[in-house]
Amino acid sequence: MNETEGLQEYISCFWQGLLAQKVKKVVLSPGSRSTPIALAAAQLAQERRIELYVDVDERSAAFFALGLIKASAEPVLIVCTSGTAAANYFPAVCEAQISHLPLLILTADRPPELQDIGAPQTIDQQKLYGDHVKHFWQLPLPEPSTDALNYLRQTVQRSVALACQEPTGPIHLNWPLRKPLVPKLPFNLSANVQPLNFPTLHQQLSVDQLQQLKEQLTGKRGIIIAGPQGKKTAQINNQCLLEWSQAVNWPIIADPLSNLRAVKQSNLISTADFLCRMPMDKLTAYQPEVVIQTGATLVSAAISNWLKKLSVPVYYLDQHHRNVETTLQADYYFPMTAAEFLPNLTIKPAPITWLQTWQQAQHLIQNQLAAYFDQQTELNEITAAYFLGTNLQHGNAFISNSMPIRDVENFWLRPQAQLFCNRGANGIDGINSTALGMAAQQPLDKNFLLTGDLAFFHDLTGLQMARNYNLKLRVVVNNNNGGGIFSFLPQAGKLGFEQVFGTPQNLDLQHLAAFYQADYQLAVDPADFQKLLQQPLHNLEIIEVRTERTVNLQAHHRLNHQIQTAFMKEMI
Amino acid sequence: MNETEGLQEYISCFWQGLLAQKVKKVVLSPGSRSTPIALAAAQLAQERRIELYVDVDERSAAFFALGLIKASAEPVLIVCTSGTAAANYFPAVCEAQISHLPLLILTADRPPELQDIGAPQTIDQQKLYGDHVKHFWQLPLPEPSTDALNYLRQTVQRSVALACQEPTGPIHLNWPLRKPLVPKLPFNLSANVQPLNFPTLHQQLSVDQLQQLKEQLTGKRGIIIAGPQGKKTAQINNQCLLEWSQAVNWPIIADPLSNLRAVKQSNLISTADFLCRMPMDKLTAYQPEVVIQTGATLVSAAISNWLKKLSVPVYYLDQHHRNVETTLQADYYFPMTAAEFLPNLTIKPAPITWLQTWQQAQHLIQNQLAAYFDQQTELNEITAAYFLGTNLQHGNAFISNSMPIRDVENFWLRPQAQLFCNRGANGIDGINSTALGMAAQQPLDKNFLLTGDLAFFHDLTGLQMARNYNLKLRVVVNNNNGGGIFSFLPQAGKLGFEQVFGTPQNLDLQHLAAFYQADYQLAVDPADFQKLLQQPLHNLEIIEVRTERTVNLQAHHRLNHQIQTAFMKEMI
Repeated sequence: MNETEGLQEYISCFWQGLLAQKVKKVVLSPGSRSTPIALAAAQLAQERRIELYVDVDERSAAFFALGLIKASAEPVLIVCTSGTAAANYFPAVCEAQISHLPLLILTADRPPELQDIGAPQTIDQQKLYGDHVKHFWQLPLPEPSTDALNYLRQTVQRSVALACQEPTGPIHLNWPLRKPLVPKLPFNLSANVQPLNFPTLHQQLSVDQLQQLKEQLTGKRGIIIAGPQGKKTAQINNQCLLEWSQAVNWPIIADPLSNLRAVKQSNLISTADFLCRMPMDKLTAYQPEVVIQTGATLVSAAISNWLKKLSVPVYYLDQHHRNVETTLQADYYFPMTAAEFLPNLTIKPAPITWLQTWQQAQHLIQNQLAAYFDQQTELNEITAAYFLGTNLQHGNAFISNSMPIRDVENFWLRPQAQLFCNRGANGIDGINSTALGMAAQQPLDKNFLLTGDLAFFHDLTGLQMARNYNLKLRVVVNNNNGGGIFSFLPQAGKLGFEQVFGTPQNLDLQHLAAFYQADYQLAVDPADFQKLLQQPLHNLEIIEVRTERTVNLQAHHRLNHQIQTAFMKEMI
Repeated sequence: MNETEGLQEYISCFWQGLLAQKVKKVVLSPGSRSTPIALAAAQLAQERRIELYVDVDERSAAFFALGLIKASAEPVLIVCTSGTAAANYFPAVCEAQISHLPLLILTADRPPELQDIGAPQTIDQQKLYGDHVKHFWQLPLPEPSTDALNYLRQTVQRSVALACQEPTGPIHLNWPLRKPLVPKLPFNLSANVQPLNFPTLHQQLSVDQLQQLKEQLTGKRGIIIAGPQGKKTAQINNQCLLEWSQAVNWPIIADPLSNLRAVKQSNLISTADFLCRMPMDKLTAYQPEVVIQTGATLVSAAISNWLKKLSVPVYYLDQHHRNVETTLQADYYFPMTAAEFLPNLTIKPAPITWLQTWQQAQHLIQNQLAAYFDQQTELNEITAAYFLGTNLQHGNAFISNSMPIRDVENFWLRPQAQLFCNRGANGIDGINSTALGMAAQQPLDKNFLLTGDLAFFHDLTGLQMARNYNLKLRVVVNNNNGGGIFSFLPQAGKLGFEQVFGTPQNLDLQHLAAFYQADYQLAVDPADFQKLLQQPLHNLEIIEVRTERTVNLQAHHRLNHQIQTAFMKEMI
């Protein structure tokens, strides 16, 4: 067997292992050292056995992969060449680790004899992402012996499984390859490799544990706090959360990213952020005796702060088995989903008055919001967020961090869409790319992105994927010409504020739309905006909402004040 | 002293330490956790005591800083907030490490009690860049005791010195900060802190070492190979390299990034790449008895490959004290600059015929190139590179990796400009940003960037800095609609080539220019192109050269073939 036949067999074996574990989505960035991997990917794409995306910017590519994972709940492979290409993956890798996304990272590398001698496109890629991946493998140099092939296949298969097992997360395979990099073609990708099986076992409470829980919870005035969760977990948990909570008269405080809010059920509370901003002494009627919490860190800081002050037993359903709960109030960390924890937990309901107290507060806030938005004739960040929320129809909406996700928390009380957000490290990087990855998996004409201008400009290169793959995404850009959130912080107005926090960019989105051949619309008022939202979507489309940071700050303060005043007057 | 006074004193102390060590250039990316650092930077900028740049994209910001460092030969501080912001620095950090650039990285972090509990914008930032920085410090939480302040000041001062000492390189300070983040203002930044002194000692050969070297080198047919070097090293070395080599009749093979080629001196060889592509058996007349090599890895693979086959003693002047030489041919690693090594090394010159042999080859190749370019009426990648090279006038030129730097190696025989390139990891990332950093330091109207379209699109966000700081940079984009270099590799034409290597982006640069308010020109032929190059430069300006990848491949092959044929005919 000559050199290029050996390489052919080795690379084929790698892909056979991936295919056996049902990895079908690949995002590739072009480069030289990854040549044989890319050629095999091209062949598989031609045979329609994988979905292949090519993105020249590795930073965008990795975030695009996060969008694919989020929307499909399947692992995704990203492939790049050696050198700083691999370093560009880092922001998305950090996000994947905290968000528990099964991102499979394959970085091609130079062989050992080219390391640390000044060879081009060579950096030390061993453990490149440090502790920010779940596991790292240094793959051996290609060698087509039976043992080497078996090791490679099993390692690839194990790595996929590891990424998908709790705590799900990114894994990194670094693969040194020697020239010649073009093997004998075509690859042998038809072999039907058996999948390695990694059965998932269900977590179960013991009889004693269940009995104890029943005693602790029965008849109590309890609350369920449902935090952000991935699509798959939401599918598993939400029905169960809804049924159980209704049966026991407990309110569910639903984070927007729990994807529970779409449901019409009377104990669903989506206004708790407003409520929890009231002074603590006004909230005694809402104080629970016990809390069951699921999901990741809440979007709402107000709810978290309220929780911290409660000092009541908190049962945390630690679905990712990571022993992480951000308020530090958990007394129990059950490494289970709600669907595993709740069904056999039959308890006496709380008094109906307990639920009614919460419902009354929710009605008051809902009514205040409805009245407020009825009167609004100006389009600003608040009204844009609100009317986008009411116009979502069974689509997918990606929300940027910073202001947009906070506005969604407050103003999307019942969004009829699946919501997504990079809510691990909460960065404003990679937003466009992640949203486009979502759009690629959900090829409907109901894909939305709500973002501010800074996040939008941070990831410009990501928009190219819309062009290259004809992706449909309607982007609402709240353009306040800078970083709006800083106006809410104590540095507002200090010397140099505009220079180091405001950071106006003075860019005209129309030209950008022309560059990426996107449709562009400037929305001028709420009616116009809503009309635009109802148009059919054919393309990447940018709807610009021009706002001002000071106006935005004042509008938020005024609305909060109005709700607070009404609450004080009517509820106490 | 209350909390905000304490923070004020602590942050002031940090900046006092930096100022004492003469750090005057800062690139900041906005964020919340870095608030007190940013406010102090704004105050210092107001007082004109630092040069402050604000870039919302941290990836671009870090590359921009590399450009500042390259063009000024001074250390630069970059500052960002916590979370993935810091991860976006990674590509430029890797480049800084290999290129030996004194990049000071300050990442704000959440305090220990917010680590690993799911707090927002919190990732594990300790040793975030692994081995890709020279040193990492975890700064203590602000505490205004005399001991703590003294520790902070000394640590900051030591860290700057460490970045600037050989092997120069990036250092990382990670700084946990607690709320409240806005201290009592203004900062006390007037204190005149004494600099810490880290005297640089000169390396010197012993009498015995010098005597031995003289015996080894005297009368020999030697070559100096001058590789890429930073601006400061070039200033130190080049005069000495020129004088010494001329005195001993040794040719100097000058890499374009040695910045030696601008000089008119008869033993300067800038055509060695063409020569070294000839078959080895035709090159016996050029075989030296000894080689002295300086600088980093050569741009030319052909010269490196020729060196590998020579098996003659190689004296490597290891200016960065890293024991790294890429051909693995060095027999001696002298941790010295040429300016330290050469002056006392008085030896008998080589026979003048030795130098003449090289000069004849150079003349032949020069003549072939001149004749070739005289005939060219089409504008393509080769002619664009060539005519840009002949039109540089004492300005600064940044060269992208991949095709542009290879074309510069071949076609810029005597460029009248300071050349810069990210020639550490040789990535195509961050090119626009690094070039703009260079332009910011050299506010002439003679700043150029030569780049391909993929590298240009990879770093779009970087262009914003031109707008915000009125930077003048003339960008020549060789737009071949994809990755041109892959057409030179064995995968060209294989199944899926266009999809995974060619990667056409089909973008119209005019719209991009409009977006960034840049000037745009389409150059249609060499005469037109040269006219455009001679126009005054007021702004960011994009000159597009539309080319085709197949044409480019053929043109390179044809020219190489022409030179090879002429050489075979006339020289042998």
